[in-house]
Amino acid sequence: MFKKLLIANRGEIAVRIVRACAEMGIRSVAIYTEPDRFALHVKRADEAHFVGEDPLAGYLDPRRIVDLARETGCDAIHPGYGFLSENADFARICEDAGLAFVGPDAEVIARMGDKTAARAAMRDAGVPVTPGSEGNLETCDEALSLADTIGYPVMLKATSGGGGRGIRRCDTPAQLEQAWERVISEATKAFGSADVFMEKCVVEPHHIEVQILADSIGNVIHLFERDCSIQRRNQKLIEIAPSPQLTPEQRAYVGEMAVRAASAVGYENAGTVEFLVKGNEVYFMEMNTRVQVEHTISEAITGVDIVREQLRIAAGLKLAYRQEDIRHHGYAIQFRINAEDPKNDFLPSFGRITRYYAPGGPGVRTDTAIYTGYTIPPYFDSMCLKLIVWGMSWEETLDRGIRALNDMRLQGVKTTAPYYQEILRHPDFRSGHFDTGFVPSHPELLNYSVKRNPEEVALAIAAAIAAHAGL
Amino acid sequence: MFKKLLIANRGEIAVRIVRACAEMGIRSVAIYTEPDRFALHVKRADEAHFVGEDPLAGYLDPRRIVDLARETGCDAIHPGYGFLSENADFARICEDAGLAFVGPDAEVIARMGDKTAARAAMRDAGVPVTPGSEGNLETCDEALSLADTIGYPVMLKATSGGGGRGIRRCDTPAQLEQAWERVISEATKAFGSADVFMEKCVVEPHHIEVQILADSIGNVIHLFERDCSIQRRNQKLIEIAPSPQLTPEQRAYVGEMAVRAASAVGYENAGTVEFLVKGNEVYFMEMNTRVQVEHTISEAITGVDIVREQLRIAAGLKLAYRQEDIRHHGYAIQFRINAEDPKNDFLPSFGRITRYYAPGGPGVRTDTAIYTGYTIPPYFDSMCLKLIVWGMSWEETLDRGIRALNDMRLQGVKTTAPYYQEILRHPDFRSGHFDTGFVPSHPELLNYSVKRNPEEVALAIAAAIAAHAGL
Repeated sequence: MFKKLLIANRGEIAVRIVRACAEMGIRSVAIYTEPDRFALHVKRADEAHFVGEDPLAGYLDPRRIVDLARETGCDAIHPGYGFLSENADFARICEDAGLAFVGPDAEVIARMGDKTAARAAMRDAGVPVTPGSEGNLETCDEALSLADTIGYPVMLKATSGGGGRGIRRCDTPAQLEQAWERVISEATKAFGSADVFMEKCVVEPHHIEVQILADSIGNVIHLFERDCSIQRRNQKLIEIAPSPQLTPEQRAYVGEMAVRAASAVGYENAGTVEFLVKGNEVYFMEMNTRVQVEHTISEAITGVDIVREQLRIAAGLKLAYRQEDIRHHGYAIQFRINAEDPKNDFLPSFGRITRYYAPGGPGVRTDTAIYTGYTIPPYFDSMCLKLIVWGMSWEETLDRGIRALNDMRLQGVKTTAPYYQEILRHPDFRSGHFDTGFVPSHPELLNYSVKRNPEEVALAIAAAIAAHAGL
Repeated sequence: MFKKLLIANRGEIAVRIVRACAEMGIRSVAIYTEPDRFALHVKRADEAHFVGEDPLAGYLDPRRIVDLARETGCDAIHPGYGFLSENADFARICEDAGLAFVGPDAEVIARMGDKTAARAAMRDAGVPVTPGSEGNLETCDEALSLADTIGYPVMLKATSGGGGRGIRRCDTPAQLEQAWERVISEATKAFGSADVFMEKCVVEPHHIEVQILADSIGNVIHLFERDCSIQRRNQKLIEIAPSPQLTPEQRAYVGEMAVRAASAVGYENAGTVEFLVKGNEVYFMEMNTRVQVEHTISEAITGVDIVREQLRIAAGLKLAYRQEDIRHHGYAIQFRINAEDPKNDFLPSFGRITRYYAPGGPGVRTDTAIYTGYTIPPYFDSMCLKLIVWGMSWEETLDRGIRALNDMRLQGVKTTAPYYQEILRHPDFRSGHFDTGFVPSHPELLNYSVKRNPEEVALAIAAAIAAHAGL
């Protein structure tokens, strides 16, 4: 096993990796930029190194990170999610420097990152893909002609895109003509490539993704699926495992297809195969070649520690589990508690956490890098806490979710927590009937009244009295 | 299901019950005495009522509590553990007042609370008990004669005792003579009864206890066993489920005996049947007719929410599970984090918590009533937090335990946390070989050096500089 590992990330996932290292006897090395001087991952890692004043540059500089890893005597690098995690060059530079990259080969990252190449690989492997372009589209006329064949609506997508960016839905030829230049321009700016492709738009599908684990000697297993249909503008808000809306047959089918997809490309390490599911239709969407934000709920229902497995695989060890060892047990829901104001178009609400008290009791897990007194910097994403609940039944899990959201104290910034309670109370959600259309079609769920807890009210009253008395 | 429930307790178990009520849509009513004015159970319950200046009296007054429950419109009372939880009169007064008591019938509490009556009931049911007196002992001569027959060492025990009090081990007739008056005097003072009985002393056994659930229509199931052998002076410190030192046959046997014991006395609600295990010998020790501190680890390995089941049973509902639905999965360890100084003979370390930050990540649960700024009052027990870890394998669970203990920040009072890390690192403990002799036979584990975390060190240095500079 590795002796020392550099974590090329920040926030809760860096803390998650520190924890896995601590449990495995691996020394952890954190990196941080100026705004992260007091970040939890810096406090919790065995070592921490400053990588520059610029908030982001130090987290995005492959050469510098690899040099630092070598200077500090590391034998491996974990990229987390985001940042350099799906950067094939970074994986290659690690390999060249003799460092284990905790993720798949550079070549596989590149191939799955190229959405048209990934689609082609899946078609070849017999994994169903949505009707659409065979490769990249060259001209707008070609796009219009293809859209006529497969039928509107269609999605125009950046080939190198991801994270919900560089995507546009077109319902008419006019919209497609408009979208053509825009997507190309966005793709060039955001991903450095003007390549675009087209897929048939599956309207309001279920977003179902399968967690897989693959070792270096060809063993591939899946840890069942996650239902990530509760999204807003292509950003996941609430994730569920297993999906309460798949039949056992559908569950077995997506699991099998995910293993087939991973095997077909010689995948190694943890990964996620995403599918669109609508009725009996199941289409491969993309493969995420990294650990995901929502890996926690697969851990909750199977008991497998995915980050631990990532490290074992990267160290060349055989998978600790065979497929038949993996059972799913109960339900898990993850809430991405974002520092945003849902009532104000989800405007980021960065600032100082005046109080954070973790929820506890049975079936509750938190992954976070915040603490009382921590100031959320405005340079990174707004997710400040992952709250994961588990229960034996779907109903118990829902009730536990509402309870745990209530139980938590997170003051000083506005968060998405009260909005999630509304979602959990909605009869469609409770009955397990929701798709990616749920959030946009229920704007009324934003009309909750903000309940302030008694301690906050007491403080506000005290402040008012003090002000009135001229204290 | 109940509409409103009064919690006749305080501390973490009161918070635990508030959470179960919140998940089940039951309104929760807390009670508190003067030192608990700012206690977490008061903040978290839907309602809270003051029951007096005296720290303890209000928690121990059956009439007052029942009257309050009726005045506030409650239909049930949960006694938690300790306080009135095993007080048969309290259960009877609840029943007479038309309130559901969340626990077994008063008659069953009384019977199992009388250790000689309990032994007799078990013998009748075919559950093995340790050799010893058939009933209570009348004279010291009778005790000496019986000890000669069953052989030393023997235990002299208060018939109404519990919680490790009113018990003395006697290795010789001289010790027995000395102990006779003392145990009687202790028993009279602590339990209001001078009755004593004798059992053969099983030297350094394993303390194995089985969690059972029984409904009002005669269904009894068990949730496997807990190993509570890590004790100091009869007080449990660390509990484990399932026991890493039972064979599958022994596990099945103690489970069967526990169900038999509960069925024999017409038990209803959650309960624990405690056994002494030494080699192939298994002896019934006692039955605890309440939810236990360590119920959490049975929840972790089976997924069953024991407090939820308690409430369902008390409301007359059928058990939600059959025995064949119950599987155990992985290992769980609970650490009782006590505000005590292990290096100073475990002297209580009450005071203000200057900082508490909950550990998180996979397989970690906390149950506590402390928070940053909370002052632990000196009137109650010293347990301030339960940290529960779960892992797929015994080794993973041990590694997670050390990590989680490290991960937690609890400052302002001394705690048993660093001592537990030493226990987890001991080769005998790691290999799963430990009995009730482990703690007394390893005093060297108290020789740890107290690592202060960097934040504390920084503060101490800053204070020293300020003092030196005359700031």
